[in-house]
Amino acid sequence: MAVQQELKKYDRIILGIDPGTNVMGYGVLGVVGRRPQLIVMGVLKLSRFETHYMRLHRIHERVLGLCEQYLPDELAIEAPFFGKNVQSMLKLGRAQGVAMAAALSRDIPIAEYPPLSIKQAVTGNGAASKEQVANMVKRLLSIPDEKMPDLLDATDALAAALAHFYESQKPAVARGPQSWKQFLAAHPERVVPRKNK
Amino acid sequence: MAVQQELKKYDRIILGIDPGTNVMGYGVLGVVGRRPQLIVMGVLKLSRFETHYMRLHRIHERVLGLCEQYLPDELAIEAPFFGKNVQSMLKLGRAQGVAMAAALSRDIPIAEYPPLSIKQAVTGNGAASKEQVANMVKRLLSIPDEKMPDLLDATDALAAALAHFYESQKPAVARGPQSWKQFLAAHPERVVPRKNK
Repeated sequence: MAVQQELKKYDRIILGIDPGTNVMGYGVLGVVGRRPQLIVMGVLKLSRFETHYMRLHRIHERVLGLCEQYLPDELAIEAPFFGKNVQSMLKLGRAQGVAMAAALSRDIPIAEYPPLSIKQAVTGNGAASKEQVANMVKRLLSIPDEKMPDLLDATDALAAALAHFYESQKPAVARGPQSWKQFLAAHPERVVPRKNK
Repeated sequence: MAVQQELKKYDRIILGIDPGTNVMGYGVLGVVGRRPQLIVMGVLKLSRFETHYMRLHRIHERVLGLCEQYLPDELAIEAPFFGKNVQSMLKLGRAQGVAMAAALSRDIPIAEYPPLSIKQAVTGNGAASKEQVANMVKRLLSIPDEKMPDLLDATDALAAALAHFYESQKPAVARGPQSWKQFLAAHPERVVPRKNK
């Protein structure tokens, strides 16, 4: 396939998803060396599908399709920790679940980031607006005007992929150790031998 | 396959699922004429899997496996409308989502029932305990003692399938019309011609 030949130039491909039950945004980032580039972005409009299940089905199929077409190494997903109410969180959880099932069935590891961290990573301001995020994504990836989407769910998804890229570029010490075992492995000088008397 | 030959005797097969992130219960019901029978039931224990994603992956794979092995016509799922908090609802939504994605990818229609309706349908009491539900499921399906599971998530899942079977056996009038269009189609005598003067 022509597209899959093109993908060979990337060292790493990150799929970003901003799931929702009305609109799902997606963005695919290709990394060459340490430089991230836009491969594709778009939205899946779900409001014309009548039932909740048809929407979930479409989200699942689109994410499966993106995994097959762009062969991402990782999935970065925008995942709020808080919601208006339990009903909206259940719906959001289902939308996230069907998207995650697609990646998991292709053995693609998942990383999730809350909206605030994504905004912070991309614009330096956790309270940035969607427009500010879109403008920064545009600048960082040198996206021409004519390729900018109408719906900012697409740039939000791309921002999730970008935030994941920045996170993985940080030196391990900046990310902090994940466990005492890791910390001690990284700092053998801090291990004080136990005195047995 | 021997199992799939066996399945030919059923007029209809209903898969019941009680999804959760610690234990997922499942039960497969075969219907011959108007008589429901147990095909299989069990649980998937998830607590030994370390990450949330591994658990979601296993739920998805098990439901896919059940759909392929038992070829259900429908999926009935126990789905509470309320939860302790938004965090637990998000987790539950994801578990439901990955289970639903499996059925949707096989074009299996989904019906969901809140726990109260399932208990009501199976025992006649919406406040029945898990043990009462298990005992009633045992009696209704003539399940011998040795086939009863240790974990009642399995009988809960079977109860969801059974509730769906009872719901679908109700005459349409008992279920009530789904829309005015349906109501008028069913009751043409109730349509009073508009008087044009």
